[in-house]
Amino acid sequence: MSVAIGSHDLSAEQRSRRSGGREARRAMRAAPLADDIRPVRAGLEGGRFKALAQSDLERIHEAVLTLLETVGFANAIPSCIEALTRVGATYSDDGRIRFPRALVLSTIENAARNFTLCGQDPKHDMLIQGRRVHYGTAGAAVHLVDVEKREYRESLLQDIYDAARLVEGLDNIHFFQRPMVPRDIPDPLEMDFNTLYACVSGTSKHVGTSFTVRENVAPALQMLYEIAGGEENFRARPFVSNSNCFVVPPMKFAEDACGVLEACVEGGIPILLLSAGQAGATAPAAIAGAVVQAVAEVLAGLVYVNALKPGHPAIFGTWPFVSDLRTGAMSGGSAEQALLTAACAQMAQFYDLPGGSAAGMADSKLPDVQSGYEKGITNVMAGLSGLNLVYESAGMHASLLGFCLESLIIDNDMLGQCLRCVRGIEVSDEALSIATISEVCLNGPGHYLGNEQTLRLMQTEYFYPAVADRFSPKEWNERGKPDLLGKAIVEKKRVLAERFPRHVSRMTDDKLRVQFGELIKLPRSGMGG
Amino acid sequence: MSVAIGSHDLSAEQRSRRSGGREARRAMRAAPLADDIRPVRAGLEGGRFKALAQSDLERIHEAVLTLLETVGFANAIPSCIEALTRVGATYSDDGRIRFPRALVLSTIENAARNFTLCGQDPKHDMLIQGRRVHYGTAGAAVHLVDVEKREYRESLLQDIYDAARLVEGLDNIHFFQRPMVPRDIPDPLEMDFNTLYACVSGTSKHVGTSFTVRENVAPALQMLYEIAGGEENFRARPFVSNSNCFVVPPMKFAEDACGVLEACVEGGIPILLLSAGQAGATAPAAIAGAVVQAVAEVLAGLVYVNALKPGHPAIFGTWPFVSDLRTGAMSGGSAEQALLTAACAQMAQFYDLPGGSAAGMADSKLPDVQSGYEKGITNVMAGLSGLNLVYESAGMHASLLGFCLESLIIDNDMLGQCLRCVRGIEVSDEALSIATISEVCLNGPGHYLGNEQTLRLMQTEYFYPAVADRFSPKEWNERGKPDLLGKAIVEKKRVLAERFPRHVSRMTDDKLRVQFGELIKLPRSGMGG
Repeated sequence: MSVAIGSHDLSAEQRSRRSGGREARRAMRAAPLADDIRPVRAGLEGGRFKALAQSDLERIHEAVLTLLETVGFANAIPSCIEALTRVGATYSDDGRIRFPRALVLSTIENAARNFTLCGQDPKHDMLIQGRRVHYGTAGAAVHLVDVEKREYRESLLQDIYDAARLVEGLDNIHFFQRPMVPRDIPDPLEMDFNTLYACVSGTSKHVGTSFTVRENVAPALQMLYEIAGGEENFRARPFVSNSNCFVVPPMKFAEDACGVLEACVEGGIPILLLSAGQAGATAPAAIAGAVVQAVAEVLAGLVYVNALKPGHPAIFGTWPFVSDLRTGAMSGGSAEQALLTAACAQMAQFYDLPGGSAAGMADSKLPDVQSGYEKGITNVMAGLSGLNLVYESAGMHASLLGFCLESLIIDNDMLGQCLRCVRGIEVSDEALSIATISEVCLNGPGHYLGNEQTLRLMQTEYFYPAVADRFSPKEWNERGKPDLLGKAIVEKKRVLAERFPRHVSRMTDDKLRVQFGELIKLPRSGMGG
Repeated sequence: MSVAIGSHDLSAEQRSRRSGGREARRAMRAAPLADDIRPVRAGLEGGRFKALAQSDLERIHEAVLTLLETVGFANAIPSCIEALTRVGATYSDDGRIRFPRALVLSTIENAARNFTLCGQDPKHDMLIQGRRVHYGTAGAAVHLVDVEKREYRESLLQDIYDAARLVEGLDNIHFFQRPMVPRDIPDPLEMDFNTLYACVSGTSKHVGTSFTVRENVAPALQMLYEIAGGEENFRARPFVSNSNCFVVPPMKFAEDACGVLEACVEGGIPILLLSAGQAGATAPAAIAGAVVQAVAEVLAGLVYVNALKPGHPAIFGTWPFVSDLRTGAMSGGSAEQALLTAACAQMAQFYDLPGGSAAGMADSKLPDVQSGYEKGITNVMAGLSGLNLVYESAGMHASLLGFCLESLIIDNDMLGQCLRCVRGIEVSDEALSIATISEVCLNGPGHYLGNEQTLRLMQTEYFYPAVADRFSPKEWNERGKPDLLGKAIVEKKRVLAERFPRHVSRMTDDKLRVQFGELIKLPRSGMGG
C-alpha cells in the first residue's frame, strides 16, 4: 500500500512500524483517571469564539432596552401585573406591560449569578459561572426514533426513564432535561408528575422539566421534598429546574406558564426562562433581530422572577430557533441556528448572567452523516462561545420532533470532542517543546513515539471516543466492517438491561408509591423489578 | 400530534398553518442569485474563533526562531545548501542547515502575500488574503470508498477525473487538489503526469498536485503551457500549484521533493509548502509543540523558496496531523486535529502569510454520523479561524486513506453551512429589527411569516442545502424515508453521466494527445468520448 510519491500521508508500512508500543500504551489506559486530570470534564471554560463584536453586543443591548420600554409585553396575568407594576413596570390601556430601562438594568445587576445547579449526587453539581460549558439534553419530542426499524413511533414514559438512565452513565452529557413527552400519559397532571418521576429516578444528574399548569407543581414539589429528605434539603440543593416557556413570542406572556413560574419560584425550583421564538415565524428573520427579541423577552422574564423573589436562581434562556424560510419549517441543524445560539451565549456573558441556549438539534431524521455535521457544527460553536448550558445537545433529531436513544451514546463521543475543543491549547514552556524537539532531532531517535512527553500526555491531553471508530480500513475490514449505529444499539441494550439507578432508594420509592398511589404510572417492572 | 404542555416546540398544527406561503416562496427561489448577494461564497472573512491568544502566538514565534537557529534542518541537497547559504543560512559539520533569526524575519517580511490562486476559469480565482476562507480537496488516498458495496477498493485514474468533474459543479468546494493516487498507473512519471491531466481536464477550478521527482515537472509544465496557450499565459495566471512535502518531520529536508520544488519555482508554479508532521509520532505530542515544529519547518521552506526566487508565491502549509496516542495511528477527525489546524491558521495570520492547513479528515470509513461530526467540527473551526485554504475539507475518510465521491456531494452542503457560519451575523439598524418587531407586535399580525423583511432575507441571508433533508417526520415518511447517501449516489451518477467539462477544448486535448502520445492514459471513452 506504500506509494512512492510526494505524499503527505504516512504509508501503511510506516503506520505499522509505529504501532510498536501499542499494547503497552493500551494497558496504561486501563486505569480510570482522576476527574481533575481527565482530558475533558464539565465546566471547561469556552469563549474563544465570538460571533459578535463588543460594539454589536452594545447595540443589541440598546435595542433590547428600547423594545422593553416601548413595546413591552401583552397577556400578563393579574398576579404578573401586580408583581411587575409593584417594582416599577407600567401597565397601559393597550394591555401591555412596559419595562423602564432603570428597572431592567437594576434587575440585571441584582439577579442571581454564579449559582450551582445541583445533581442528586453532588459529583454532578454544575457551577454556572463565566464561560463554563455544560452539555445536556432537552426537548419535548413526541417521537422516539427506532433506528432498527428506521421508524418514528410515539414516545412513551418508559423511554424518558430509559433516556435518563443512559445519560446517567454518559460522561459528556452533564444534565438531563426531559427530552420527550410521554404520549401514553395524556392527562396533563399525570404527564407532568410522571415525566419528573421518570427523570429523577433515572439519573442523579441535574434534571429539567416542565409543568402544564400551576396546579401541577404542588404534587411534584411533594415528591421532590420526599426524595430530598425534606423541603429544606431540596431548597438548599434543588436538583430540578423548571424549563419555563413564560413567553409566546413575540412579546406576549404565556398565561399557564406564568402560573407555573410563580409556583416554582415559591417552591424553590430554579427557573430556566425560556424564550423560543423562531426566526422568520415568531421572531424576525434577521439573525440580529431574533437575538434582540429573545434577549428582550428573557430580560422581561428576569424582571418578573426577581419581582416575585429577588435573587431567585434563573437561567437566561434565550433559545431563538430558525425557520427554513422557503417552507416556514424549523431548521434546528442550520448554520443560522449555530450563529443565533453563539450570539446568545455572548449576550449572557455581556450581562454576566447564567446562559442557556440550544444546539445539537439535527434536521435529519436519523443518526446519519447529516445529523452528524449538523450536531457537530452547532454544538462545537456553542461550546467555543462559552455557553454555560447547551440544551438539546444530545439525542435530538428532526428539529426537535424525534429523540433517539442510540444517538445519546454516539453524541456523547461527539460532545467529548467538542469539550476537548473548548478546553483549547495549553501554551507553556513545556508544551512549546523546544527541549523535546531539540533532543529528538539532535540526539534522539528522530521521532516522538516512545518519548516521555508523548507517554505523559497520552491520557491527560487527548480525548478518546468510546464507540467511534478509528480503525484503519484494513483493521475495519478484518473486524467485519463494524457499523457505529450497530455498536450503539448493542450498547444501549446492554445498559438498559443492566443499569437501574438506586440513588432514589427503594425505601424512598416505596414511600412515594404509598403517598401518590395510582398517580405513579411507571411500573416497577420497567425499573428493574 | 399537538400536545398541550409548556412545550417550547411548535406543534404539528402550528407548523402546518405556517406553510401557507410555501409555494410562493419556493417559486421566488427558482431564479439563481448574483454571486455577490449569495448567502455564501468563496473568500468570506473568518477569524472570529481564536484558539490562541496574542501572547501565545508570540511565544510560538519565539520558539520557532530558536529552533531554526539552534536545531535547523538535516538532509539538504547540494542545490538547497547552495541557495540557503547564499542568503545567510549556515551549514555545519553536523550536516545541518541553520537559519539565523534575521534571515527568517526578513524572509517573512519580503515573502509573497495577497496573491491570487487562479482557476482556468477566472471566476474561480481565489484571492488569498487576510482571513478569507476557501475550502477544497486534497490528499493522497489509495482507496476509493464504494458506498454501495461498503467497500474500499484501489483508487484509479478515472476516479481522479470523476472527482474533478464533480467538484467542478459543487459551489462550496473552491479548489481541487488531487485527493487520490491512481493505483492503476504505477510508473511515477506516468502517475504524476496523468494525475495532473485528469485534474486539469476535469475542473476549471484551481488545481493542486504533487510530483515524485524533479524530472517529472518538465513534461507537466509543457502540458500546462499548452493548455494555457503559451508559457507566458501560464506564468501570468498559474492555475496549478505544487503540493510539496519538502520536509520529513522532524526538521529534515525531503530530497526528492526539494528537487521538485526547485523545478516548480523555475517553471512558475506556486508552491504549497507542506509540513505534515504527526503529533506524537513525527511531531511533539503537545499541541503547542506540534505547531511550533510545523511553523519552523514551513518557515525554513519559505526561506528556501525565496532564496531560489524572491517573492515566488508560496503557501504557508502547516499541516500538523494527530496520532491516537494509544495506537500511533493517525486521527484526522479528532478534536486535537481541529485545534492544531485552528492554531496554524492564526500563525499564518500572525505573519500575514497565505495559510493552508487540513480539516475535514474523518476517521470514519464511510459517510456516517461519525464522519459527519468529525468533518463538521474540524471544518467549521478551520473556517471560523479564518484559514485561507482549508485542504482535505471534502470527500475524505479513514484519516486520508479513502476518498468518497458521494461524500463530495454531501460535504458540499456541510461546507455551505460552515461558510454561512464564517460569514457571521450582520448587525445593522435594519438587522436589529426594532421597527419590524414594534410593527409586528403593536400593529401587525403578531408573526413574521409574510413580513417584508422575511421575504427579503430569504434568499440572501439563509443558506439552503442541496441534498440534505429538512422534511418533517411526516413528510419524510410519506416520501419513502429518503436516505441522504442514496440521494448522493443518484446525484453522482447523474453528474458523471452528463458532465464532461470542455474548458480544455477538444482541439487542445487533441494537440496534447499528439504531443504526449502514449503518456496520456485516461482514454477519451472515459471523458465523454
